[in-house]
Amino acid sequence: MAVDTDLGTVVEALRAALPAERLITDPDVLVTYASDEAEWAPWELPLAAVRPRTAEEVQAVVRACIAHRVPVVPRGAGTGLSGGANATAGSVVVSLEAMDAVLEVDALERFAVVQPGVVNDDLRAHVAGHGLWYPPDPASSPWSTIGGNVATNAGGLCCVKYGVTRDYVIGLQVVTGTGDLVRLGRRTAKGVAGYDLTGLMVGSEGTLGIVTEVTVKLRPLRDPERTVAGYFDSVVAAGEAVTAVAAAGLTPSALELVDRHCLAAVDAWKNMGLTADAEVVLLGRVDTPGAAGDVEAEQMLAAFSSAGASWAAVSTDAEEADALFSARRLAYPALERLGPLLTEDVCVPKAAVPAMLGRIEAIGKAHDVLIANIAHAGDGNLHPLLSTPPGDDAARDRAQLAFHEIIAAALEMGGTVTGEHGVGLLKRDGLAAEVSPAVLDMHRAVKAALDPHGILNPGKVF
Amino acid sequence: MAVDTDLGTVVEALRAALPAERLITDPDVLVTYASDEAEWAPWELPLAAVRPRTAEEVQAVVRACIAHRVPVVPRGAGTGLSGGANATAGSVVVSLEAMDAVLEVDALERFAVVQPGVVNDDLRAHVAGHGLWYPPDPASSPWSTIGGNVATNAGGLCCVKYGVTRDYVIGLQVVTGTGDLVRLGRRTAKGVAGYDLTGLMVGSEGTLGIVTEVTVKLRPLRDPERTVAGYFDSVVAAGEAVTAVAAAGLTPSALELVDRHCLAAVDAWKNMGLTADAEVVLLGRVDTPGAAGDVEAEQMLAAFSSAGASWAAVSTDAEEADALFSARRLAYPALERLGPLLTEDVCVPKAAVPAMLGRIEAIGKAHDVLIANIAHAGDGNLHPLLSTPPGDDAARDRAQLAFHEIIAAALEMGGTVTGEHGVGLLKRDGLAAEVSPAVLDMHRAVKAALDPHGILNPGKVF
Repeated sequence: MAVDTDLGTVVEALRAALPAERLITDPDVLVTYASDEAEWAPWELPLAAVRPRTAEEVQAVVRACIAHRVPVVPRGAGTGLSGGANATAGSVVVSLEAMDAVLEVDALERFAVVQPGVVNDDLRAHVAGHGLWYPPDPASSPWSTIGGNVATNAGGLCCVKYGVTRDYVIGLQVVTGTGDLVRLGRRTAKGVAGYDLTGLMVGSEGTLGIVTEVTVKLRPLRDPERTVAGYFDSVVAAGEAVTAVAAAGLTPSALELVDRHCLAAVDAWKNMGLTADAEVVLLGRVDTPGAAGDVEAEQMLAAFSSAGASWAAVSTDAEEADALFSARRLAYPALERLGPLLTEDVCVPKAAVPAMLGRIEAIGKAHDVLIANIAHAGDGNLHPLLSTPPGDDAARDRAQLAFHEIIAAALEMGGTVTGEHGVGLLKRDGLAAEVSPAVLDMHRAVKAALDPHGILNPGKVF
Repeated sequence: MAVDTDLGTVVEALRAALPAERLITDPDVLVTYASDEAEWAPWELPLAAVRPRTAEEVQAVVRACIAHRVPVVPRGAGTGLSGGANATAGSVVVSLEAMDAVLEVDALERFAVVQPGVVNDDLRAHVAGHGLWYPPDPASSPWSTIGGNVATNAGGLCCVKYGVTRDYVIGLQVVTGTGDLVRLGRRTAKGVAGYDLTGLMVGSEGTLGIVTEVTVKLRPLRDPERTVAGYFDSVVAAGEAVTAVAAAGLTPSALELVDRHCLAAVDAWKNMGLTADAEVVLLGRVDTPGAAGDVEAEQMLAAFSSAGASWAAVSTDAEEADALFSARRLAYPALERLGPLLTEDVCVPKAAVPAMLGRIEAIGKAHDVLIANIAHAGDGNLHPLLSTPPGDDAARDRAQLAFHEIIAAALEMGGTVTGEHGVGLLKRDGLAAEVSPAVLDMHRAVKAALDPHGILNPGKVF
């Protein structure tokens, strides 16, 4: 295949291959396609962005980029927190947002086939109409797309009981690094037809292929959840409650931690009348039906109390409980309003949650950095959010130091630094610190095998 | 790296690298390491077999084989049904059976770390002592090893509700195709550190690496199950009951089909006093606790009746129910006693189960082949067993024709031909028929990337 080194011509090739309205070259518009929400990660203005409507259009874009050896950067809603969708100079961004159809729901076989641009909550609402449920629920579920969730193997609130995105993706349609449009995986309950290329694509952040269709398995809609809320005077005490819940043998359907910085930021924005009485709030949920669920909610309450909750109760008010969970989902955008955020995504063993929360607090104090905490605490998946005042470069420098100390602490405790947000640009050093050189070589070998021209979102992940 | 073309010297290299008792070269013993239970698949006597005790010994074997460009064929208990562990001429078999220790159980984090030679039922019994449960339960669970289960991504009886082996493997230690000993995956609840190489290894049948340690996630022990048994006059009627169970929105913890050929073979062997009254028996199980479980058992009973069961009941006798499930596990070895078996492993959509069972029956009649049926029916995962009298070559030829017609029928119905037994040698043609040439090329590219010397179980899968 001839390489055309005049990069300008890829835009001409795209213009020839696609309806005119698919192509964006106006810099004022392009800038909105140039980065995700990882505002600390570098990005550049791309050559062009395209908004394809079909898999064949995506294929045409990839083929043009192969012909011109131009990097392709796929993106969904741009809610990513690791810079995985950030454009590089001379790249073409492929925004899948317009491919937003739910194509099929099979209630008997319990799967749905969707385009990548479907918003997570929209899929959830759609399948609920068939009595079915798509569990993975990243906090960004009102905005993020299934394609982005697949690219990052997104987690979420109920993943502590129900698993992450990869656990639900059974089939994919993908444009490969060789410009082929292929189907991977299955539509049946089981199938081991060769290597698990489907699972390999999930979490590969567009570096091994561009997903044009997703088949997800579904579960039956579940019974309403019970909510158990607890207030704690310290993050360490809340962490001890998390360990106590695990030690009691419970499997909560959610166990979220939100600290007062987050609650205050949400309240300042949305005026929800949230409490300022607690340093930290734990929000637990139980979805076991019947009397067994009542017992589990009481056991969770006992675990909260044993860890020193200043107040704890099983909520009898569904609206109040939903408001608390809404506040938790709004914590990230609420804090973003106050200044640049550097987001951690560490996951430590459940036994290490109290110690890790203590370390995070100490690191924040040592470097004079405001660290707000939200966490999928039941998973040990902590999201300390390092907040700095706008324009304060010294604070940014201190935050960078704290960021790397938190990563080192998580690894020291037997954890990972990439819980659920992907690696992108922001966690590349963390990945390299976490896996051995031989495993990094395996990554490079797989990447070279499936992206022989090196055009699929190069420079991300590793 | 120099290639020594004198294959004999690999044995010398192994003798130098390992304690003497690890190495087997006596042909009378070697033959017991030369094949799995896929008796129709080809095999040859290997050069040698080794029984390593440590990961470092496995690494030494792989390095010797790389140096001499000799194929390595890993095996567990040899209970595979697709020839994945069959030796080729000039190969070295690595039997992991002696690496059978449970290394760690973490009850708080809910995982176990085991060596690959641990027998599935032994792991199950071990973790039960910690109040925990390892769900994947292939019918071979009394004999098959976790390493073999990982190699084939084995399914089982309760997988209809709880998923297959890959759903439980969170970390692996692997000797790679470059002779490195690496750790993949995680020990925490979540983690997206790069590509899912762990999932890629699961089901790769030793063609991408040799597993030397497995970290599996566990669930809490569950409540006792209720059993619902139903007798049917035809496989099609039983298939309709399976579809009716799915249509009722139920999620059984097992839904197995056993026909009278299987029951008769087991009874002739074990004299269990099994019924000969039914053409087909369906065995359903429900593990939802409390009153909700009672309701589900009654709903399953109603589904059986609506599909025309000649008799159906919720079992009140746990011993009787366990005997029926034991008979189901014994079906394969019982039929094996009667003559060579050719085992299918198709998985079709639940709605297609009755039609597929009807087609299998018709194909058997058309080719005058005795086809016994066992099935993880609730998954749509059917195992027609084509039985031929010992030494009857004409019957073998007819069975081959029937085998391929069943595969074609499953694909026509939107199914897969590799439900849970792996591809091995026996299903290679089926895999090639099922995936596109571009996807086969992706397999070849991944294989070449991770096994650059082409020594890891070559010729298997594709």
